[in-house]
Amino acid sequence: MKIAILPGDGIGPEIIEQAVKVLNTLGESFEMESAPVGGAGYAAHGHPLPEATLKLAQEADAVLFGAVGDWKYDTLERSLRPEQAILGLRKNLGLFANLRPAILYPELAGASTLKPEVVSGLDILIIRELTGDIYFGQPRGVREAPDGPFKGQREGFDTMRYAEGEIRRIAHVAFQAAQKRDKRLTSVDKANVLETFQFWKDIVTDVHKEYPDVALDHMYVDNAAMQLVRAPKKFDVMVTGNMFGDILSDAAAMLTGSIGMLPSASLDANNKGLYEPSHGSAPDIAGKGVANPLATILSAAMMLRYSLGKAEQADRIENAVKKVLAQGLRTPDIYEAGTTKVGTAEMGEAVVKAL
Amino acid sequence: MKIAILPGDGIGPEIIEQAVKVLNTLGESFEMESAPVGGAGYAAHGHPLPEATLKLAQEADAVLFGAVGDWKYDTLERSLRPEQAILGLRKNLGLFANLRPAILYPELAGASTLKPEVVSGLDILIIRELTGDIYFGQPRGVREAPDGPFKGQREGFDTMRYAEGEIRRIAHVAFQAAQKRDKRLTSVDKANVLETFQFWKDIVTDVHKEYPDVALDHMYVDNAAMQLVRAPKKFDVMVTGNMFGDILSDAAAMLTGSIGMLPSASLDANNKGLYEPSHGSAPDIAGKGVANPLATILSAAMMLRYSLGKAEQADRIENAVKKVLAQGLRTPDIYEAGTTKVGTAEMGEAVVKAL
Ligand SMILES: CC(C)[C@H](C(=O)O)[C@@H](O)C(=O)O
Ligand SMILES: CC(C)[C@H](C(=O)O)[C@@H](O)C(=O)O
Repeated sequence: MKIAILPGDGIGPEIIEQAVKVLNTLGESFEMESAPVGGAGYAAHGHPLPEATLKLAQEADAVLFGAVGDWKYDTLERSLRPEQAILGLRKNLGLFANLRPAILYPELAGASTLKPEVVSGLDILIIRELTGDIYFGQPRGVREAPDGPFKGQREGFDTMRYAEGEIRRIAHVAFQAAQKRDKRLTSVDKANVLETFQFWKDIVTDVHKEYPDVALDHMYVDNAAMQLVRAPKKFDVMVTGNMFGDILSDAAAMLTGSIGMLPSASLDANNKGLYEPSHGSAPDIAGKGVANPLATILSAAMMLRYSLGKAEQADRIENAVKKVLAQGLRTPDIYEAGTTKVGTAEMGEAVVKAL
Repeated sequence: MKIAILPGDGIGPEIIEQAVKVLNTLGESFEMESAPVGGAGYAAHGHPLPEATLKLAQEADAVLFGAVGDWKYDTLERSLRPEQAILGLRKNLGLFANLRPAILYPELAGASTLKPEVVSGLDILIIRELTGDIYFGQPRGVREAPDGPFKGQREGFDTMRYAEGEIRRIAHVAFQAAQKRDKRLTSVDKANVLETFQFWKDIVTDVHKEYPDVALDHMYVDNAAMQLVRAPKKFDVMVTGNMFGDILSDAAAMLTGSIGMLPSASLDANNKGLYEPSHGSAPDIAGKGVANPLATILSAAMMLRYSLGKAEQADRIENAVKKVLAQGLRTPDIYEAGTTKVGTAEMGEAVVKAL
């Protein structure tokens, strides 16, 4: 089995290094090959997603991704900026299903800005559609406004679009994920305003007929943003479009106060996937050896479970992470008085030892 | 001066009644005329925004609006549902600037789901563009997908659009609001993905040249949703488009835990405005006399300040509200042990007395 390793920018390389160390401890024989992506891709080959990197990702059984982005690339034109790599990988690999768990580890309840009783035991799974919506819809651009009160002026425009098959396949992923959990699914839309999301709601309602054991409810996106703050534990699985999912999954992650702990998976129709931490490239702390590698290590666990058919190894890693937390080891982002502050490499070592 | 009073549905009529009582105590001679809107408009005239209601709102100097929506209208076709009234009023009256303060009253710090140190003293002003964006952009609908991997299938679609003049005018409102506060403005966009919001960012940056005394920063919408949870007090004024503003202003309101306290203003180019509480119609508690009328009373204060040129009267009302809070009076939504629980009418009476 072949894993493409794409460390990227900022803290990407150092956290990926720890995850690779953990994978190497499992006693499996994975073929791993790494390639530059994001700003590193641009620096090496003049493009955030160099052809060879894309080819490697396409040929691999799974992709382990660090993070991309650095201030030094901010002045590049948009098509060359690091984040285009992630959009390009999603689209080219057909990674339409983004799974973003928001889990609060009991030991880290204090890290949240929310009151403990509101978030302790939080365990939500947000499923975000990742290759459609206004992220990719054509036409888009800047033009002369063709009509309306500002006709003739310059205007920026984009197209939100969701086709029936696109909604059906993400709905199936969501209902099946709910079946494996508490069997409750909230579909988030804006059907009161958007044609796209009235259509979304209708199709999700139709797919629901195949999953009578799952309780489905529909919620407007503005209300969902409120309920995540008010009573997040009421949610089990949420499913939504690319744009709303971008916003809500980040808000949900931040509820835990420990985004350095949260993995993510982006899957295609055949369970091939790209796995990455939910946090960013944090260029401000890059190279200092203080970044939290656990989200990346947990992403590797998701990879073992969803793409490589090694659920037991995934469990082993997840248990090892719980163990190091129970031992009181903390990187600076999750440090609290009374615990032991460690760096990136020490944390990775501790997980290896716990295995 | 003429005020159009549109009570609407659910708790709308009972909270509006208290605000009207307060306005009548000021010793000013306002002409007030009321008309049905939302579900009540549909029930009376077969349309959520009856012609006579729209005419009244157009002729008045300001509109005081309760809330719309009730489950009984959920099965109506979309164009007849209560919330169409609010979209119609915004568009027809040209109410492009929505001002949504998120303020946490010190006495109510306990109501928030966030830790007191994270939210105490919170005072953010969110300025949401209200007549453009994907809310109104044409074309939109359900069609056969004209291209892409799902070509030929049914798809829902909408158009996000912002013209230069539309962005300029809301940017001016935002910079001027920031000048009257802490002189910090955060423009929220998704310029890394959307053409509309790269254009938005460019225009806001250009308008900034006219306001060198205001510090401007740009933030992606997903990050803004996170920062609202992580460190909301870092914000002063935020400005964004209609869709992102819908989501972020509701999230920000919920941070306070006391959305029953939060007013809003929606202004046109000449300071004519529609004023309404930030909360909804709450049909579950309608008619029970337990709804919190303070958001509506504070909306009336905003109306006095922004549309009717009576800033002193606005101050009087706001001080009266602070006084009743200091007296320990609380409607059930903000009740805590050690305070005095009162109903809708008693709360209105208390404000009248405090005046
Ligand atoms: C970097 C950006 C294009 C990306 C997105 O908007 O999808 C990021 O925010 C994410 O959620 O992975
Ligand atoms: C009712 C709905 C159309 C409306 C909106 O989306 O603008 C509401 O959520 C609001 O924020 O006033």
